[in-house]
Amino acid sequence: MNNDLRRAVLDGSERNGSSASGVGMGSHAFAKDDRITLKHGAGGRAMRGLIETAFLHAFATDPPQLAGVHGLAAMDDGGAVRIGDRWLVLTTDSHVIQPAFFPGGDIGRLAIAGTVNDLAMMGATDVLGLTCSVIVEEGFLRRDLERILESMRETCLEADATVLAGDTKVMGKGEIDGIVINTAGIALTSRLITDCGLRPGDRLIVTGTIGDHGMAVMATRHGLALDTPLESDVAPINGLIRAALAADPTAVTAMKDPTRGGVASVLHEMASKGRVGIVIDERALPVRTEVRGISELVGIDPLLVANEGKAVMAVRADAAERVLETLRAHPLGRAAAIVGVCTEERPGLVVLDTGFGRRLVAEPEGELLPRIC
Amino acid sequence: MNNDLRRAVLDGSERNGSSASGVGMGSHAFAKDDRITLKHGAGGRAMRGLIETAFLHAFATDPPQLAGVHGLAAMDDGGAVRIGDRWLVLTTDSHVIQPAFFPGGDIGRLAIAGTVNDLAMMGATDVLGLTCSVIVEEGFLRRDLERILESMRETCLEADATVLAGDTKVMGKGEIDGIVINTAGIALTSRLITDCGLRPGDRLIVTGTIGDHGMAVMATRHGLALDTPLESDVAPINGLIRAALAADPTAVTAMKDPTRGGVASVLHEMASKGRVGIVIDERALPVRTEVRGISELVGIDPLLVANEGKAVMAVRADAAERVLETLRAHPLGRAAAIVGVCTEERPGLVVLDTGFGRRLVAEPEGELLPRIC
Repeated sequence: MNNDLRRAVLDGSERNGSSASGVGMGSHAFAKDDRITLKHGAGGRAMRGLIETAFLHAFATDPPQLAGVHGLAAMDDGGAVRIGDRWLVLTTDSHVIQPAFFPGGDIGRLAIAGTVNDLAMMGATDVLGLTCSVIVEEGFLRRDLERILESMRETCLEADATVLAGDTKVMGKGEIDGIVINTAGIALTSRLITDCGLRPGDRLIVTGTIGDHGMAVMATRHGLALDTPLESDVAPINGLIRAALAADPTAVTAMKDPTRGGVASVLHEMASKGRVGIVIDERALPVRTEVRGISELVGIDPLLVANEGKAVMAVRADAAERVLETLRAHPLGRAAAIVGVCTEERPGLVVLDTGFGRRLVAEPEGELLPRIC
Repeated sequence: MNNDLRRAVLDGSERNGSSASGVGMGSHAFAKDDRITLKHGAGGRAMRGLIETAFLHAFATDPPQLAGVHGLAAMDDGGAVRIGDRWLVLTTDSHVIQPAFFPGGDIGRLAIAGTVNDLAMMGATDVLGLTCSVIVEEGFLRRDLERILESMRETCLEADATVLAGDTKVMGKGEIDGIVINTAGIALTSRLITDCGLRPGDRLIVTGTIGDHGMAVMATRHGLALDTPLESDVAPINGLIRAALAADPTAVTAMKDPTRGGVASVLHEMASKGRVGIVIDERALPVRTEVRGISELVGIDPLLVANEGKAVMAVRADAAERVLETLRAHPLGRAAAIVGVCTEERPGLVVLDTGFGRRLVAEPEGELLPRIC
């Protein structure tokens, strides 16, 4: 089974990474018959290349230096505009996860948590409102739709958020695989936190165990029978982030949620944008025993695997212990840990200290599994 | 051809209206194996039933009477929350139109215009920011994606709007038919216009010719060869609405854009929410000759057909001529017309005065063509 599973997983990743297609960082040259491949939606280097060449080319009417606008060119978890003395943060995500119901959650919970967490990553933890746009396939079971909506309702209650506007579309049988949900959200904050504010000396904190969501979905897809079933960590963590920010309002210098592409992808983006090096202590990374088990079984590093209820934070060194303590006092932050430090050396690079030596962590091409979120 | 086309169109509408499924207004009873059908996304009575029973059941945590919140329960074009002395309007739409490129526009233009227009319908004509979430099928041509993004960029310029945040997902071959785009948007307004504020005596204005979008897409889908090709009216009309509101800031008592289900569907919703009767003068309805031609050919009333660059406005009687004049002075409002009046009699009903007599306009079950927007 070990080999079969590994092959199945690698087949998936192979498919995911097929057809190189000449989309490079910063390059705008591509062949006339270039086609979109799965990796262009996988959250890593390939997707960043597509966004930088195609989307920013179209929408970069907002220079990042424009006062009062934190726009698309910043490529952050969301955009923001100034309203009076506060920032109004705006974010969106479409959710295409397969299967729609998975251990620990479903597409509805994922959609609410995903948008609430993106807002929280920018320091905006009190949600003003959400939108919910559902696209379903003709023939979709109404009771499944209601179950998903009920899950969204419950997740909204957890996040103290309200859906203010919605939209419903139905596509024909075979025109869409089941259900897709888009959520957008708005929230106000007096202090905007970006993903680029890291400074040498800052400590890096992950707010809990890593790889839970991706490994749980992978195990489900491959019908893996485990002694202890894996569960996704999908949860709205705006309450956790609110507590951490309250502990020291200026301690957090950058924040990002490690979804597609996992913690490794997020660290690369943060190091590159903040122009710092990052050194991670592998032994400090919180990983569930079950996740470590399956990780060794299939040979996939939990650092590369998606999370849906976690944050990676850069925190001023002098405040790191206090923030950590606050995180650990919250039910969703019990396994939080200081896992690394920002350095002046090797800006843009991520180094893993294994305890036996140090190695560079390559920037992932993208999430290994398609439709992970 | 006449009969063939008519059959093709009616087959579509038949398919669209298939499987009754027990979803009734206000009723929450449905069979265990009830399934979603195309008409549940078609913008008419069936969709309203689904939203009222399933979506509001989940999300009606926001009573419409709550001060400072115009939420989902209002079932308006968008939601709104109070910020200081203004309203922040929030709206969303997913766009699934087929084909993605059609005469007069494409899915990108539709996505930007759709969201900008929904904001404008609530009186919020200055867009603070948009989000753009694209879901593409693996294998989609990159040049088609770039063409769509370029069209979005141009439409943003027309609407003086900026995309502040985005998301990209790729689904596998056969898992989604081509491309789906979700846009959400925010805008501030000091006066919130809803779709329920009609009063007896108010005049009804349509801002231009009706049925253009739906008829153009239908003609394209059925490969209809026409002497004068039909074109969709898809356009952002926030500038037009801004001018009308400036002409008399309190004259407009209700507004709605007649997309899925056409003008008939919107009139029904407005009459029902405003608790007024509506009498429409059929001869006053602006209809393009080409649209009238195809309408007679296939036996579909332009009143039932989708528009993507029009508004239906209720306007105080004493201000109606002034607003009309302002609309007609704008390039997108040249064919604007006063087409009806609100009455105290027959609240909730829509009556068509044909010139030969009067008849009730039935509330459409939904848009005749699936994936019209």
